[in-house]
Amino acid sequence: MKISLPDGKQLDLPANATAKDAAQAIGPGLAKAAIGAIADGDLYDLMKPLPDGVKLRILTEKDPEYQQLFRHTLAHVMAQAVRELYRERGFNLESVKLAIGPVIENGFYYDIDAPEPIREEDLPVIEEKMRKIVADNLPLHRFVLPRDAALERFKGIDPYKTELIESLPPGEEISFYQQGDDAYGFTDLCRGPHLPSTGCIPPFFKLTSIAGAYWRGDASRPMLQRIYGIAFRTKEELENYLWQQEEAKRRDHRKLGQELDLFTISEEVGKGLPLWLPRGAFIRRQLEQYMYQKEAGEYGYDYVYTPHIAAAKLYYTSGHLPYYAEDMYAPIIIEDEEYYLKPMNCPHHHMIYAARPKSYRDLPLRLAEGGTVYRFELSGALSGLQRVRGITINDAHIYCTKEQVEAEFIRVIQLFNEVYADFGISDYWFRLSLPDFENNPEKFGDPGPHWDESIAAIRGALEKSGVKYVEGIGEASFYGPKLDVQVRTIIGKEETIATNQLDFIVPGRFGLEFTNEKGEKETPVVIHRAIMGSFDRFFAFYLEHTAGDFPLWLSPVQAVIVPISDRHLDYAQKVAAEMRKNKLRVEIDDRPERMNAKIRDAELQKIPLVLVVGDKEAEAEAVNLRERHVKEQRTLPVAELIGEMGSRVAARK
Amino acid sequence: MKISLPDGKQLDLPANATAKDAAQAIGPGLAKAAIGAIADGDLYDLMKPLPDGVKLRILTEKDPEYQQLFRHTLAHVMAQAVRELYRERGFNLESVKLAIGPVIENGFYYDIDAPEPIREEDLPVIEEKMRKIVADNLPLHRFVLPRDAALERFKGIDPYKTELIESLPPGEEISFYQQGDDAYGFTDLCRGPHLPSTGCIPPFFKLTSIAGAYWRGDASRPMLQRIYGIAFRTKEELENYLWQQEEAKRRDHRKLGQELDLFTISEEVGKGLPLWLPRGAFIRRQLEQYMYQKEAGEYGYDYVYTPHIAAAKLYYTSGHLPYYAEDMYAPIIIEDEEYYLKPMNCPHHHMIYAARPKSYRDLPLRLAEGGTVYRFELSGALSGLQRVRGITINDAHIYCTKEQVEAEFIRVIQLFNEVYADFGISDYWFRLSLPDFENNPEKFGDPGPHWDESIAAIRGALEKSGVKYVEGIGEASFYGPKLDVQVRTIIGKEETIATNQLDFIVPGRFGLEFTNEKGEKETPVVIHRAIMGSFDRFFAFYLEHTAGDFPLWLSPVQAVIVPISDRHLDYAQKVAAEMRKNKLRVEIDDRPERMNAKIRDAELQKIPLVLVVGDKEAEAEAVNLRERHVKEQRTLPVAELIGEMGSRVAARK
Repeated sequence: MKISLPDGKQLDLPANATAKDAAQAIGPGLAKAAIGAIADGDLYDLMKPLPDGVKLRILTEKDPEYQQLFRHTLAHVMAQAVRELYRERGFNLESVKLAIGPVIENGFYYDIDAPEPIREEDLPVIEEKMRKIVADNLPLHRFVLPRDAALERFKGIDPYKTELIESLPPGEEISFYQQGDDAYGFTDLCRGPHLPSTGCIPPFFKLTSIAGAYWRGDASRPMLQRIYGIAFRTKEELENYLWQQEEAKRRDHRKLGQELDLFTISEEVGKGLPLWLPRGAFIRRQLEQYMYQKEAGEYGYDYVYTPHIAAAKLYYTSGHLPYYAEDMYAPIIIEDEEYYLKPMNCPHHHMIYAARPKSYRDLPLRLAEGGTVYRFELSGALSGLQRVRGITINDAHIYCTKEQVEAEFIRVIQLFNEVYADFGISDYWFRLSLPDFENNPEKFGDPGPHWDESIAAIRGALEKSGVKYVEGIGEASFYGPKLDVQVRTIIGKEETIATNQLDFIVPGRFGLEFTNEKGEKETPVVIHRAIMGSFDRFFAFYLEHTAGDFPLWLSPVQAVIVPISDRHLDYAQKVAAEMRKNKLRVEIDDRPERMNAKIRDAELQKIPLVLVVGDKEAEAEAVNLRERHVKEQRTLPVAELIGEMGSRVAARK
Repeated sequence: MKISLPDGKQLDLPANATAKDAAQAIGPGLAKAAIGAIADGDLYDLMKPLPDGVKLRILTEKDPEYQQLFRHTLAHVMAQAVRELYRERGFNLESVKLAIGPVIENGFYYDIDAPEPIREEDLPVIEEKMRKIVADNLPLHRFVLPRDAALERFKGIDPYKTELIESLPPGEEISFYQQGDDAYGFTDLCRGPHLPSTGCIPPFFKLTSIAGAYWRGDASRPMLQRIYGIAFRTKEELENYLWQQEEAKRRDHRKLGQELDLFTISEEVGKGLPLWLPRGAFIRRQLEQYMYQKEAGEYGYDYVYTPHIAAAKLYYTSGHLPYYAEDMYAPIIIEDEEYYLKPMNCPHHHMIYAARPKSYRDLPLRLAEGGTVYRFELSGALSGLQRVRGITINDAHIYCTKEQVEAEFIRVIQLFNEVYADFGISDYWFRLSLPDFENNPEKFGDPGPHWDESIAAIRGALEKSGVKYVEGIGEASFYGPKLDVQVRTIIGKEETIATNQLDFIVPGRFGLEFTNEKGEKETPVVIHRAIMGSFDRFFAFYLEHTAGDFPLWLSPVQAVIVPISDRHLDYAQKVAAEMRKNKLRVEIDDRPERMNAKIRDAELQKIPLVLVVGDKEAEAEAVNLRERHVKEQRTLPVAELIGEMGSRVAARK
């Protein structure tokens, strides 16, 4: 048989040759380093015979596919270790039945039906046995059985494997992988691919948890136990992953929302409908106010208010009905007419545009609103403030001429840069989504000057703004190109935090127009844009970004005064009054608790400043200041404290 | 027959005596002044025989019932005048058919089927004839006919009167009133009562309009013409009424909303769902911000955000379902569960209260929200921003102990006083609504200490606040007494502008509680309160109150700069930039129009300040200021203007 190599050379190998054979034919060094291969685009291990005439590339531990191979083999190693454990406990090997054991993101799992439940505390024992199997470097080999023989092997022993084989289409090759021998080893029905030996597995793996899982995900079938493991190529990757998990847990906005009294979700009000408690509402209001000041105060946006429902006909004009109907909630019938919770603010804003005749002198017109929209989410998909059923978007629609698009995008990008800087978000970039005329002509129609001009305008804006951006094909909207903002979260994940779209189709549907300088009617284009995305999601993001350590200007309670004893309460009140006069947000902890308990509680609430006051402080008109994340305590006059706090607030620190 | 008089005396009169006879028996002076009577609580004229044994009080022109009598007689006078008009045009008297002619608020009308349509320009002619009939002082007399004779009278002549007689229950007395004689007079089928002669009618009446009206209000029956008239006792009353009408038209918030670009209603979005245009939205935002500063900044309210929908179960707990269902919109089905647009914010706020355990130290807890609620209104009842389907309430719920009720009401009243003073509303008073145990025991339950204590607390707060208040029985809520705020509008009408309620029932239904100082669980009471009522209605009210002449601090555009010619545009821009740096809202009118046209347009837009700039002003770094409603123009330096405007804004002028 013939094999082509990446450099164009051809190998001539005996029939049923494997990638191992090919590597050996190339040279002994590669044969030693080889751990798998890519054959005509598919991942192969070294044991499986190659088809004739295939294009082959040998893989080593440097290739990214290595990860998939060692994760898969680790699933087998774990299964072997579990069997070893039960053998030691006096069960026979076959009493541990195995369902499926695939590779998943960051690791692997195996669904197991053990004769006695596997317990959390078994995991380190199993892991220890896995390390031994890896250290023992058991070689893997692959063999194939005819269907009958394969069924015979599991008959009366493992109902899961039996069912798996039975469900294979006729003619499908039924392969097995064996590591080690029958005395100390493990054989599994498996499609592969695998590493050539357990010794090739990097030791940076860990069993993380155990959970129940129905056989084939069907709640009417037996409940198995699923053991999850993670595995990485290097120690750094493993440690980084564990740190990410830890951080994600510590920063989980649902947990922080509860601990810091920011929001709550009440079953009685409904799923995905959060209630903002006073402290969370305070911060949200600051976000809204901040955006208002930027947009209305500095960037020439006109704020409007629009209702939360609209008659069905509006959404027939916009095209949301029937095309977007599955993302909308069921209609409300009012006097025999159908009304919908609005899924987007744009149609309402278009009606405001249309309410008065417009001339070129009115453009660009930038209508903005903290507009609440409702989009259908399955109850199972709901999560804290991140996935909810009603979200309030920091929305705006810029109506402008085609010639104004570039300049308007430059302003939008500048606004992004300013806002993100003020919120300490630095690791973000833009992603320009283009149409895919080739593969999706139905969605994007014909490439035409509309597309070319508008893509050129946005690219121009990105270039002139000097911001980082990437381009992607296919994710544009049917009505124009899209400019997403991507952010790397503090734990290293990429997320889309905001989306802007150019729209050269829908304004025409609504019959929007303006009189140009020549006195002719023209249709404007619209830029849909949201700097913070939705306040709900942005708040969730920001909560995780800061781990609830809000900067002083955003903190609902900026300082707590702790009087050393009751007789310092008067002085505490005097200080509080003085601070409040200066618009600082301060509370006095006058509970009958010990001072240290109060200081600890303030820390748990992540209050930026704790001000302890006793005789000395009262006499000096001062406070003893404990600043969060600052080791040194300072005693400073109240006036000085107020000045310092004022400067920080003004600088948004 | 015997008649008792108010002083306890008895008169002995012949059978079928009238009030006129009674008045004459009392004395000739009274007989001359008499215009009607009250007999056992019913209004009688001087012509109708009195029942035996009745209690009688003679009325003169000083009594308020006079108004009803002269309005009713005027309807007949108008009918006579219309017949005269058509007789002059060559028709016979009987060709003018008459349906009904009742008294209404401020006047009367008559539905007429004339041989030729009555036109708008006929009204002054008819009015002139009416004045002649009044001047001619035709005496009225009353007579009764048996049913047959009455029907005979109208047979083949007037189908409306015929139908009216036919629809009278058998045995009912069929009376007629005749003024003047057959040659110059008028007779009508009528129940009365009337004045004794047309000369008793005060001359302060006016025909106002003509409209179509179906016979018996039934669109399948003939369309008649209805002539409306107004009539008052004095010239002042008439003039005041006409002024009110004129003012109401001039100040109509729907008209001003259109003219000043404040809001719009789009058929496509839906009826009763206004869209706030940038200028209206700006003012609404100022109202919301103002209330936020007062409430959160000065009065210790905690703002929250709650969603606009909630699951049905919340409203079963609150009791809105099923009792309030007809004021709610149809449910939205989400994953087989019913959700409702919220009709009130209280249940949501109660869930926020319940989200965390509360102690007496947390009370009073004042939760506030600009909360949007949806209440069913028939499309026919919708009107501008006054009657809409979604309103945003300046809502708050104060959770407190019973002992705190008085103090909290005092704070609420103080806040009302401050807010209304800032908005120039001075003619208002409070109305305490009490329960009516006697007539409505089902609604109010038993009088108990709850009621007594809470009424005493609110009365105490009213007294200690020294505000004007009245009390009314029966309009309390089932869950406690109500404190409305009544305002007299600028055109003299009384309106309820805000409502506050004490609630000692619903907190228990939600299981709300707090731990008191003794460590026991107690249920708080709740004060529902809204200072501005809803922002929508308050805005409508305030728009009519100011006729759109907003004070400087609230004006969306505070000043317009009018450059005398194009070469002054640079200087205009310099002035605008300087003003904007000082947070003043200014626009430049750079349209290619004449200066005077621009000044007039600014006046039509009710812009408070117009700044004309030309060579002289540019040289002196000044502006020529035309202040709205101020005759004198002033030229003053830009810096001085900015200072003046800043002071006015700070003082909310």
